[in-house]
Amino acid sequence: MSDSDIEMVVAIIRPDKLGDVKKSLAEAGAPSLTVTNVSGRGSQPAKKGQWRGEEYTVDLHQKVKIECVVADIPADDVVDAIADAAHTGEKGDGKVFVLPVSDALQIRTGTVGVDAV
Amino acid sequence: MSDSDIEMVVAIIRPDKLGDVKKSLAEAGAPSLTVTNVSGRGSQPAKKGQWRGEEYTVDLHQKVKIECVVADIPADDVVDAIADAAHTGEKGDGKVFVLPVSDALQIRTGTVGVDAV
Amino acid sequence: MSDSDIEMVVAIIRPDKLGDVKKSLAEAGAPSLTVTNVSGRGSQPAKKGQWRGEEYTVDLHQKVKIECVVADIPADDVVDAIADAAHTGEKGDGKVFVLPVSDALQIRTGTVGVDAV
Ligand SMILES: Nc1ncnc2c1ncn2[C@@H]1O[C@H](COP(=O)(O)OP(=O)(O)OP(=O)(O)O)[C@@H](O)[C@H]1O
Ligand SMILES: Nc1ncnc2c1ncn2[C@@H]1O[C@H](COP(=O)(O)OP(=O)(O)OP(=O)(O)O)[C@@H](O)[C@H]1O
Ligand SMILES: Nc1ncnc2c1ncn2[C@@H]1O[C@H](COP(=O)(O)OP(=O)(O)OP(=O)(O)O)[C@@H](O)[C@H]1O
Ligand SMILES: [Mg+2]
Ligand SMILES: [Mg+2]
Ligand SMILES: [Mg+2]
Repeated sequence: MSDSDIEMVVAIIRPDKLGDVKKSLAEAGAPSLTVTNVSGRGSQPAKKGQWRGEEYTVDLHQKVKIECVVADIPADDVVDAIADAAHTGEKGDGKVFVLPVSDALQIRTGTVGVDAV
Repeated sequence: MSDSDIEMVVAIIRPDKLGDVKKSLAEAGAPSLTVTNVSGRGSQPAKKGQWRGEEYTVDLHQKVKIECVVADIPADDVVDAIADAAHTGEKGDGKVFVLPVSDALQIRTGTVGVDAV
Repeated sequence: MSDSDIEMVVAIIRPDKLGDVKKSLAEAGAPSLTVTNVSGRGSQPAKKGQWRGEEYTVDLHQKVKIECVVADIPADDVVDAIADAAHTGEKGDGKVFVLPVSDALQIRTGTVGVDAV
């Protein structure tokens, strides 16, 4: 689906799915990942609520962002491993995006390119 | 400006402009976004200050990073919607970058490509 | 190594190397950067430990993510500046990835393209 040898798979998932996703990635042969706490909203309109008589709007939900850079394994397999583990079927399950990467370096060894990933 | 059908618009803005930017994006038809608390510096040299007789340097400022992946709407329109809402005219207003995206998946439905964004 | 005029250098490093990396980047003529607190794991299997008689697993380590978008300076020089400053020779030193960027905007001035970076 891309002509890049190295790709970054970026997924935004429910925080309580992180453990399952890490396990699924390790089983797919792609154990390396970077995790960031984020918040966000998808296509749903903001939810309105009441608290002590005041109306408030919840429009950003806590999510976890996972970034996995892959080279040996097809990015599609990594996308599927994440989606399988993160799926509940309810709105808010998240998204996965694939971005091209033009180069990589492993700092300890100085290795560059596909072998550095 | 890009030959990619899907693009990620990444903006680093002042934290107190997040509300205006969310509203501007929703009005532009691009309500979905992911928000991260970050810090950073632009092209200004570090600011020096004094605190209880000690000199200190402020060189990283709190900012908010917004990521919006778009497909149906031109990325340029999204960039403009963010910039209009985030602009004050003072140094430190921030930057917007556009990155190509080669694929997308909506986890709940399994939809891929442009329709998943 | 890339045919893009603008590139985003993404580095995941040890938190205690941030100061050295910032200095190294400024010396290389690329002072602008965005910093995010992240956690992650590389290719090592999870470490097992004991705490008050309970076994636990440490599999995500605190790291710092640095993003530097560059245009005038070769991305390779920026990658080297980061790697030189972040290197210890021990496992866990981190990775650097380079991603293509199709456009940039400086919010204060409205400048776009290479000059906006
Ligand atoms: N186009 C997008 N750009 C950036 N981030 C997105 C985008 N779409 C979703 N996200 C991120 O993913 C999180 C989860 O999105 P969500 O699963 O609600 O998407 P959705 O399109 O509304 O799908 P669903 O109908 O299944 O809820 C959001 O909170 C946001 O952080
Ligand atoms: N080239 C860059 N790479 C990565 N992040 C950047 C870059 N330039 C700016 N940023 C991020 O954007 C934030 C705001 O930048 P800022 O608006 O100060 O840019 P600037 O070029 O100094 O413009 P100004 O002169 O208007 O201040 C920074 O704190 C940093 O997080
Ligand atoms: N392929 C990858 N995708 C995403 N993030 C990665 C990847 N590899 C490493 N990282 C990030 O970089 C951090 C440091 O990785 P690390 O230096 O341990 O890599 P490594 O390949 O195990 O190398 P070493 O053998 O030197 O430890 C990880 O905690 C993770 O956040
Ligand atoms: Mg949703
Ligand atoms: Mg500035
Ligand atoms: Mg390691």
